[in-house]
Amino acid sequence: MDIGIIGGSGYTGGELLRLLANHPEANVVAVTSRNKKGQKVSDTHTHLRKIYDLEFEDLSMEDVASRSDIVFTAVPHGTAMQVVPKLLKAGVKVIDLSADYRLKTTVFEKVYKMKHIDPRDAVYGIPELHPEIPEQDFIANPGCYPTGASLASAPLADAGLIERAVFDSKSGISGAGAEPTNTSHYPNIAENIQAYKLTNHRHRAEIVQELTRLDGTLKKISFTPHVIPSVRGILTTAHIFVKREIDMDELTDIYNKFYSNKPFIRLINGIPMLGGVRGSNFCDIGFEVEQGSDRIVIISAIDNLVKGASGQAIQNMNLMFGLNETTGLWVPAIAP
Amino acid sequence: MDIGIIGGSGYTGGELLRLLANHPEANVVAVTSRNKKGQKVSDTHTHLRKIYDLEFEDLSMEDVASRSDIVFTAVPHGTAMQVVPKLLKAGVKVIDLSADYRLKTTVFEKVYKMKHIDPRDAVYGIPELHPEIPEQDFIANPGCYPTGASLASAPLADAGLIERAVFDSKSGISGAGAEPTNTSHYPNIAENIQAYKLTNHRHRAEIVQELTRLDGTLKKISFTPHVIPSVRGILTTAHIFVKREIDMDELTDIYNKFYSNKPFIRLINGIPMLGGVRGSNFCDIGFEVEQGSDRIVIISAIDNLVKGASGQAIQNMNLMFGLNETTGLWVPAIAP
Amino acid sequence: MDIGIIGGSGYTGGELLRLLANHPEANVVAVTSRNKKGQKVSDTHTHLRKIYDLEFEDLSMEDVASRSDIVFTAVPHGTAMQVVPKLLKAGVKVIDLSADYRLKTTVFEKVYKMKHIDPRDAVYGIPELHPEIPEQDFIANPGCYPTGASLASAPLADAGLIERAVFDSKSGISGAGAEPTNTSHYPNIAENIQAYKLTNHRHRAEIVQELTRLDGTLKKISFTPHVIPSVRGILTTAHIFVKREIDMDELTDIYNKFYSNKPFIRLINGIPMLGGVRGSNFCDIGFEVEQGSDRIVIISAIDNLVKGASGQAIQNMNLMFGLNETTGLWVPAIAP
Amino acid sequence: MDIGIIGGSGYTGGELLRLLANHPEANVVAVTSRNKKGQKVSDTHTHLRKIYDLEFEDLSMEDVASRSDIVFTAVPHGTAMQVVPKLLKAGVKVIDLSADYRLKTTVFEKVYKMKHIDPRDAVYGIPELHPEIPEQDFIANPGCYPTGASLASAPLADAGLIERAVFDSKSGISGAGAEPTNTSHYPNIAENIQAYKLTNHRHRAEIVQELTRLDGTLKKISFTPHVIPSVRGILTTAHIFVKREIDMDELTDIYNKFYSNKPFIRLINGIPMLGGVRGSNFCDIGFEVEQGSDRIVIISAIDNLVKGASGQAIQNMNLMFGLNETTGLWVPAIAP
Repeated sequence: MDIGIIGGSGYTGGELLRLLANHPEANVVAVTSRNKKGQKVSDTHTHLRKIYDLEFEDLSMEDVASRSDIVFTAVPHGTAMQVVPKLLKAGVKVIDLSADYRLKTTVFEKVYKMKHIDPRDAVYGIPELHPEIPEQDFIANPGCYPTGASLASAPLADAGLIERAVFDSKSGISGAGAEPTNTSHYPNIAENIQAYKLTNHRHRAEIVQELTRLDGTLKKISFTPHVIPSVRGILTTAHIFVKREIDMDELTDIYNKFYSNKPFIRLINGIPMLGGVRGSNFCDIGFEVEQGSDRIVIISAIDNLVKGASGQAIQNMNLMFGLNETTGLWVPAIAP
Repeated sequence: MDIGIIGGSGYTGGELLRLLANHPEANVVAVTSRNKKGQKVSDTHTHLRKIYDLEFEDLSMEDVASRSDIVFTAVPHGTAMQVVPKLLKAGVKVIDLSADYRLKTTVFEKVYKMKHIDPRDAVYGIPELHPEIPEQDFIANPGCYPTGASLASAPLADAGLIERAVFDSKSGISGAGAEPTNTSHYPNIAENIQAYKLTNHRHRAEIVQELTRLDGTLKKISFTPHVIPSVRGILTTAHIFVKREIDMDELTDIYNKFYSNKPFIRLINGIPMLGGVRGSNFCDIGFEVEQGSDRIVIISAIDNLVKGASGQAIQNMNLMFGLNETTGLWVPAIAP
Repeated sequence: MDIGIIGGSGYTGGELLRLLANHPEANVVAVTSRNKKGQKVSDTHTHLRKIYDLEFEDLSMEDVASRSDIVFTAVPHGTAMQVVPKLLKAGVKVIDLSADYRLKTTVFEKVYKMKHIDPRDAVYGIPELHPEIPEQDFIANPGCYPTGASLASAPLADAGLIERAVFDSKSGISGAGAEPTNTSHYPNIAENIQAYKLTNHRHRAEIVQELTRLDGTLKKISFTPHVIPSVRGILTTAHIFVKREIDMDELTDIYNKFYSNKPFIRLINGIPMLGGVRGSNFCDIGFEVEQGSDRIVIISAIDNLVKGASGQAIQNMNLMFGLNETTGLWVPAIAP
Repeated sequence: MDIGIIGGSGYTGGELLRLLANHPEANVVAVTSRNKKGQKVSDTHTHLRKIYDLEFEDLSMEDVASRSDIVFTAVPHGTAMQVVPKLLKAGVKVIDLSADYRLKTTVFEKVYKMKHIDPRDAVYGIPELHPEIPEQDFIANPGCYPTGASLASAPLADAGLIERAVFDSKSGISGAGAEPTNTSHYPNIAENIQAYKLTNHRHRAEIVQELTRLDGTLKKISFTPHVIPSVRGILTTAHIFVKREIDMDELTDIYNKFYSNKPFIRLINGIPMLGGVRGSNFCDIGFEVEQGSDRIVIISAIDNLVKGASGQAIQNMNLMFGLNETTGLWVPAIAP
């Protein structure tokens, strides 16, 4: 497969390149960046020296499409809706890593406070929850927080058992991007933790969309994100309040059945942590039932740049091309 | 005041010494440690070199009491109950930093799964919630998590407004003590976050005790702790579900009134973080009301070794001796 | 003493405020910032909430001088030379924390590649090496790296024993300031170490000036700095090649004599580390003689913002006003 | 190739497993651990869940040899000399990751203060410096510090240009192993840096052996290690004092020639850092000539667990089996 990447200078672009370097069927043929045109890709992504000899190019969408079998758009929201229709019109498959096509248009416009110039249906690309991905030519790749939160709670939503869900998520700072900011300034985040968007983070809308798709009666969904002194990873602590008593055996059974034959989900007998998934496409899930209470605590751990972004995008690509979803992604996490 | 410290080789002992070094009325006269008898205190607490010339001693409680006006017991739970009665019998004031006297005896025995050999009532030493501290000779100094969680939510509990409270807490690793363990091993916690005791941490009982004291009808209290890659600090994210609609103005009013004249509480217009309180006795509190929901998110930040342990103990000491509670503690946090 | 601070919004300004808050003779009366005029000082330095009620002001130097007994200038190099002469002309004592007056004018102009508009002699403010400080009205406060390097090696330079000195220094990132940059971006420095200015960092000139003042024959002085994933601190590894054999006893004797009656120098029997000095004005020094070699390794540890900047400035202030140099600074480091 | 690993529960064992998981010719057939016999390998190395289904076994060396084409011994020094002769006698190829066979026997016994029970010549396994590796059945895999230091300076040693070499190395804490210690206790190393073995670290002997092999006249070699708050990586700052003037062009030429056709060496126009090599087998090298001085500063960056241990071992294995040395190792570093 010949692959194009629109917007390759950020973290998700770099992560696509890192992961595709060891994909047996992938061949990156074009990486665009308007600002870095003519510079070597490995001058920006210095960890890719000797791995890639490509240069950033400033190409039309038509040019990228003509060279590629599939194109990943790794551009900011609001920009993706300008380039995606051109790519699709040119007949190439597209996976968009921005937020532009993840939500129903009306919801998108409300949450992102902008007019959508290319209203279009897209399948939301969590392969474990969307068996229809192999037939698609266009995928809206999910947000990092929604991936961790949805995978943690989908089996219970699907079973109609959730009364209330509170997602308290802790993310590595790479989710905020490659540009230095006050939040990412080392003295501000080291030895610290920063809660933000306490009640109204945009990603909540994606979580709501996915869980209510599984259980239309579910109404009470809360989400609060934090950044922690870690580069990668999202740990989601899902405090789930259930409609009826449930014990560990039944809970385990529900998760085992829901995620049977899902290679990247690891249900573990214990508590997941970021160190177990760093650099990999796995999502580790563990849980515990509170005695004498209606609360279940479910912990999920993902790498925000892999299962939360570029790895999941490649998993979607594999499915869209009839490959095994693990092709090129069956790589262990790096630990310690 | 002449001060004795029982068990001075750990982090809370070291922090008492650090803070008392600049207390104008305090004079540390004895620091005990069985293992380190005869060694200089500053060989263990190397940051205290030239500040203290004391040696660790192995003394009877009677000896310590005879030298001291007040004694801090900084020993493990189960040990405190062996030494506290001897000290009190010898007529000295005592502040116990262990868990032994924080809970009603029946609750203690159930939670800590041990027989209590010295059942005794003690005032729970959060000065902002216990005006009766100045009259006491004995104080049970609170746990670190309960301090952060109780201060975050007490005004709403006092107003009878809480339907359900979910405390999701993130602690620095110093809370686990000075002894190396797998959890505190740098490769295991750096760039990571570890949830633990998802539904049954012992500190939950203290939170329940404090909040139900303010609102006897409150039943639904959940608590899940995490350790993060930080040495100091506890950030508590309190997801509070309230009984009736409440807006920011009313909420602000409730907190302002409840904490008026409480010097160490800082109600901030924004989101607290650990960097604002490190090394200090302050508790920063901020909050946000979720639109169209019954959820309020309250964030509190403390230094677990100061307001969560040794600083609060000194605040209690000040009150027990008729001093201004800020004496020796009106020290800014260290930042960056 | 009434104190003015010119340029109070950065890290050294904040650290002056933090340290002066507990100085018994100090009263901060003016803090200037052109950009932040009218804002509360504690909105920028949030750790100082409730400690200071001051606002940043945009004042003339004459106004600041008229209110103050001493003024600290915490502005960038090149700016200090514009404000210092006005302050001195107005008759107030001044301590300049910039680089503008540390070097002989000819050396300054060569190293900083700029014309000096106010050539003027100033005493270089390392009190342990400059007994003439008490008589001064103006002090050039030293750089952070030169403080650590000079204190590590001055006794050997003074003894005329150094053949060659190689300073390999490791600094916390706060030395780069409060403004976010690529270097300070958390994903770029966490779990990393960045060497920079391998052979020509500007601070080398200060080290050369100080050491050759003690030994005019000393020629071979090298310096390479690094930033490490730490907010505060400078650890200097001084590889000193000596002219004749020397053993630990003689070496210890040289250091003990040189630093007798220097309260902030702690000669330790072991290897200093940043954790022992964080937040304090101490400089910890330890050393080892290589068997069968002409090499001695000396390690010094300081807090770059305290002994390497604002703490040393206050130490100088104390001396200039006839106070004990430890006044307000005899505060233990914070550990863990 | 069928592969056995003796001592698979530590970091180098885990890293062999991680890297071999994506080696197209490798098949791990046995992993021994006496303590963890019968436990799943992925219960210890939780990042390898679903990747390996192996259990730790407690096997005789003969059993391991009979199943394997090559055996890696990842056991402590002193233990390796007990198992290696049995494996070699059984006719299997061996790569020993301990220190037991790296040094000449007389040097080993002096440095490690123990009698060697199996004196035996072995080729020192830095492939870039030892073209004789392909013909070997037994390789002594180098120490992590000596790999970084030798690769940084070998071209200059080979050119006979070094008068004096001072290696100031900064290592991630994973080099100290998987067992918790005071040094690896998070509160002791976070926001800190710890120099140790200032003049007499055992790895110095390996550096001396390698460099004097290239230049028999070289005498002055110094080495001081530090641990920094990083899990992985070694940055070596080599302060090299040269015998005659040399400029950047000549220096670049020397390095380019020496390392032509060495795929894992990346000579970069800039300053290497750990972030560029994490998780990979690359060694990045950059340098600068000090103007008007005899000093050259060379920086090398490796991942201590990969090029400094398990990756280099696999590189040696590839060569011993006639494979391209990059087989299974041409994997980019993980960044950010």
